[in-house]
Amino acid sequence: MAPVTNARHIFIEIPTGLPEPGKHTAHDTSRTIDLENEPLHGGFLVKTLILSIDPYMRVKMRDASIKSYSPAYAIGEPLYGYGIGRVLRSESSALKPGDHIYGALTPHEEYFVRQDPEQFEVLKNEYNLPLSLFVGVLGMPGQTAYVGWKEFSKAKPGETAFVTTAAGAVGSFVIQLAKLDGLKVIASSGSDEKAAFAKAVGADVSFNYKKDSTKDVLDREGPIDVYWDNVGGETLDLALAAAKDYARIIECGMSSQYNASELYGIKNALFFVTKSLSLNGFIVYKIFHKYASDFYREVPKLVKDGKIKYEEHLKRGLDLVGEGLRDALDGRNQGKVVIVVADD
Amino acid sequence: MAPVTNARHIFIEIPTGLPEPGKHTAHDTSRTIDLENEPLHGGFLVKTLILSIDPYMRVKMRDASIKSYSPAYAIGEPLYGYGIGRVLRSESSALKPGDHIYGALTPHEEYFVRQDPEQFEVLKNEYNLPLSLFVGVLGMPGQTAYVGWKEFSKAKPGETAFVTTAAGAVGSFVIQLAKLDGLKVIASSGSDEKAAFAKAVGADVSFNYKKDSTKDVLDREGPIDVYWDNVGGETLDLALAAAKDYARIIECGMSSQYNASELYGIKNALFFVTKSLSLNGFIVYKIFHKYASDFYREVPKLVKDGKIKYEEHLKRGLDLVGEGLRDALDGRNQGKVVIVVADD
Repeated sequence: MAPVTNARHIFIEIPTGLPEPGKHTAHDTSRTIDLENEPLHGGFLVKTLILSIDPYMRVKMRDASIKSYSPAYAIGEPLYGYGIGRVLRSESSALKPGDHIYGALTPHEEYFVRQDPEQFEVLKNEYNLPLSLFVGVLGMPGQTAYVGWKEFSKAKPGETAFVTTAAGAVGSFVIQLAKLDGLKVIASSGSDEKAAFAKAVGADVSFNYKKDSTKDVLDREGPIDVYWDNVGGETLDLALAAAKDYARIIECGMSSQYNASELYGIKNALFFVTKSLSLNGFIVYKIFHKYASDFYREVPKLVKDGKIKYEEHLKRGLDLVGEGLRDALDGRNQGKVVIVVADD
Repeated sequence: MAPVTNARHIFIEIPTGLPEPGKHTAHDTSRTIDLENEPLHGGFLVKTLILSIDPYMRVKMRDASIKSYSPAYAIGEPLYGYGIGRVLRSESSALKPGDHIYGALTPHEEYFVRQDPEQFEVLKNEYNLPLSLFVGVLGMPGQTAYVGWKEFSKAKPGETAFVTTAAGAVGSFVIQLAKLDGLKVIASSGSDEKAAFAKAVGADVSFNYKKDSTKDVLDREGPIDVYWDNVGGETLDLALAAAKDYARIIECGMSSQYNASELYGIKNALFFVTKSLSLNGFIVYKIFHKYASDFYREVPKLVKDGKIKYEEHLKRGLDLVGEGLRDALDGRNQGKVVIVVADD
């Protein structure tokens, strides 16, 4: 068989604010691959099917000399992230052709050869659910919501939780976990459509922070026992002010700060002392192992039975990675951003 | 017996910065008391011996309409705080003449009548230690260090702790607890004399932050696994920058903020997420009960055996409360500030 195009989505330039499609990342069709003859060197060849687009990817678009929890992307190389592919050929005993594999290091290219099967997980998918869910409610975002809530919320029925980016893949699942635990949920998101979705998944109070003052809502509907923070900045300050004694703050992300040219200074830190607050930051892949068996036993069945609501913002085509990332970062997406690279 | 003067130290005016002796608090000798005939109404009459002067008292010198963890002092009424007295007369079955009692609501007056024995604890003092220690290493400051360290440090031998206001009653005990647990200790304090004391109680690295840059010391001697925060503000930001992954921040106080006209904004909050940090604020009296029996079994004996070092800054006379508070707040004290009101 003749070589075919092997398109890639590559990192071009370090952005200062929001990355722009075509400027900071670009679609590159200059490469080809011979799917039958490409040497595997003991590894495996994968056809990329699904790519997850997540706000944390912005953290990787930095100068490699700046340390962070997640390595920087290399200029001129493909982006990578959570994704799903199908094994076409394999010389590894760990994987066989036809396996669907999931991993956090899936490159943004149509086909790829790797020798590190330990970095991928073979999807079981016993309920035959759509593959895209394995980068959403059943993948990193769902796992983030699940482990953060189980490990740090110390939730008790009758308490009040405040959830930010409440219509996102993480936030909307957090709302549902909080409701399953019997809490009142206040949900903040950035558009009327998102606020409607957060309400639809179960939030008792759902508002568009661009229209309604977060402070006013918290004054009226708080105080709060649990704060799920996806945004940081001024919202964290307001949550500290609205916190009850012994409130728990779960630090999942600070999207307001990723593209900020100047960092916001948290002024209400004294409440940590005066209200005996606790705060815990976490990175999902570092603690998921504690909850993996619970998660896989419980969540796919909840999804199959229609007990967990989710929303996906699917884009078709590897060339749309830049647009997808922009959408995820500036909030114009409605639901989890997923790139469908190819059908199975 | 004729009535005697019953001097009081009263709250006069709400300060904006540091409280000034004579302006914001004042000594008042206008009252008298008949020690033999003052009616007890089922309560008890106490002679005040020892008063503890602590930075948290500044938080109480505010407009009563501003909520906080600790009620505001009333204008025209005596200050109150941790203190020790001897019962002179009692109509309560809980207390008898001669008992030494300890409590957080001890008024700053020479004699007082109360009907709430449950607010006081009878000191056992089985090793016949100086009474002033029961407002220091054996009282609230020592208990604060003990419960904060035991509950939140998750200390492991070989780790590194950073302790602020390291020569204070709390900080100097924290250093010793950290050394008992096998940690390297970096100690920050505000004078060469204090730095020398922190070193003498066991700190591996001790510096005067007014002379040496905290950032430089942490760059050289860090990174850190545990941060004991007594100061907040920029030092907290620097500690967040110097924290290792999974570091624990123990929020005991933020003395840099109590008298600040403008609150410092914490800019390094994103590290909570990226380094999986935990932070816990606490108020000692709300969790001490969990550790009370351990504390009383372990600490008085350590003190008697000379295994815990401490330093006291004793002032003789109730009229010196204002000076004592100023010293404790602006840091000119060397050791725990204690007012000796009277001999036993």
